[in-house]
Amino acid sequence: MTAVAGTIEEVRAAVRKARAAGHRVGLVPTMGTLHAGHVSLIRAARNETGFVVVSIFVNPAQFGPGEDYETYPRPLEEDLEVCRAEGVDLAFAPDASEMYPSGFATTVHMTGMTEKMCGAARPGHFDGVSTVVAKLFGIVEPDAAYFGEKDAQQLAVVRRMVRDLNVPVEIRGCSLVRDADGLATSSRNAYLSADERQRALVLHRALAGARQRISDGERDAKRIADEVRRQIADTGGVNLEYVAVVDPDSLEDLTEIGNQVLVAVAARVGSARLIDNVLLRGLRDRGGKGRKKTC
Amino acid sequence: MTAVAGTIEEVRAAVRKARAAGHRVGLVPTMGTLHAGHVSLIRAARNETGFVVVSIFVNPAQFGPGEDYETYPRPLEEDLEVCRAEGVDLAFAPDASEMYPSGFATTVHMTGMTEKMCGAARPGHFDGVSTVVAKLFGIVEPDAAYFGEKDAQQLAVVRRMVRDLNVPVEIRGCSLVRDADGLATSSRNAYLSADERQRALVLHRALAGARQRISDGERDAKRIADEVRRQIADTGGVNLEYVAVVDPDSLEDLTEIGNQVLVAVAARVGSARLIDNVLLRGLRDRGGKGRKKTC
Repeated sequence: MTAVAGTIEEVRAAVRKARAAGHRVGLVPTMGTLHAGHVSLIRAARNETGFVVVSIFVNPAQFGPGEDYETYPRPLEEDLEVCRAEGVDLAFAPDASEMYPSGFATTVHMTGMTEKMCGAARPGHFDGVSTVVAKLFGIVEPDAAYFGEKDAQQLAVVRRMVRDLNVPVEIRGCSLVRDADGLATSSRNAYLSADERQRALVLHRALAGARQRISDGERDAKRIADEVRRQIADTGGVNLEYVAVVDPDSLEDLTEIGNQVLVAVAARVGSARLIDNVLLRGLRDRGGKGRKKTC
Repeated sequence: MTAVAGTIEEVRAAVRKARAAGHRVGLVPTMGTLHAGHVSLIRAARNETGFVVVSIFVNPAQFGPGEDYETYPRPLEEDLEVCRAEGVDLAFAPDASEMYPSGFATTVHMTGMTEKMCGAARPGHFDGVSTVVAKLFGIVEPDAAYFGEKDAQQLAVVRRMVRDLNVPVEIRGCSLVRDADGLATSSRNAYLSADERQRALVLHRALAGARQRISDGERDAKRIADEVRRQIADTGGVNLEYVAVVDPDSLEDLTEIGNQVLVAVAARVGSARLIDNVLLRGLRDRGGKGRKKTC
């Protein structure tokens, strides 16, 4: 049975009750249009906590002017069906006015890692993310919150925000989920025509190539980036925005790849802006010690 | 017995233990140099909660260039003596590097009410306050936190931040405390010579006059402000920075005084920047119903 809350007060009452019953609380923040990637987050939360909250909120603060806030899909009934099937305890689907009431004036702002990669093309985007995540943490007070490694920059920003503001929530990063054809799951894949989707697969292929070359011992970040760029350029209809070869925690550009690396891309295909990445940790220590625990 | 913690981990461990023992937790955030105003906050916390934490931290983020960060007094031993005398359970006195470690990049930023009054002369000041208060709330996770109404703008900003970010902490505002001569207690009063202190008393006298006129029925905000301004101008050596007649919650300028009003001033006397105010609530309802509960 998934309860549905529209107000902050309802969430707090439900969480209070769950805590009184001795449950740990897990939060999966989403913008809805739940797909296999979200389901993997929900299952991780279900595994690790006794009371799972999924927030479904298309957050206006993280969309820029001219972006797809108005047209972003909002299939609430289907999303609640997914929540019910996955045993979610509480779905929180507030109106924008519940989250940003009249007089709202506060932003959680981060310098540095928010200004590059997706942040360069989407100024203010990560402030919008940090702000709504801080709010959701204040509302739900979860023990742990679950984010996809697909949104690698978002995950790094949320981890930094939690560290900087000493937010008492454990952040769990969960592996990127791909459809059978290799495309990273995304609500925005719905914007792709069949032909565009075929072309978009080059992102995955180029990144899989990068992963292979790094596993084979390549440590020169520029050679990795150039090869990804070349493969994507060879495919028509895929407009590359960036290739980044960075440390996955600090998002600082790497020259030489050390113990861990994030290779991330963003590209426009038709009307969709797509992101994808590969993440390798523990390169110096392939036994797996020193790797960040993922779910 | 006041325990003293220098690290975030020590605070969290102590608070966890207090919670396990069933205590509510109260936080009094301070920059040290504890005076009678702080003591009133500690006593309110002591009255209302079972475990009282006093943070003592001269927060660099709320000082501007050329302000008194370097010279601000830091009499830690005397402050701990006050904590012991008042039965504080835990004093948290971190180094700046514990609060702002390498790579720190996050600011809680607020528009609007932060840009006027003290914010006009101290750009960035209230972002520094909001950020450190958000951090302290994340570290201590208090049930209630205690702030002086003397710092009226700070109190309004903290309340707005808590509302906007849904921080699960009750904010308690405690009445301004005056020394016997009427000067509002402040760590910066130590900067005043005996002559400067005599001159500074005009702030209190002018505000007491404003309170009297409002109680007598004056509702024209400009007349109130002009009269305060005139009295202060008549005193040599007191350089008025602003007189504000505003709503105490929104800090919006009033034309006509309604149910509640904050009359606030800032002035330089010698090397000290002093603030003072009077706060009247429930003007339409003098029985006291509708007043905000203070401690």
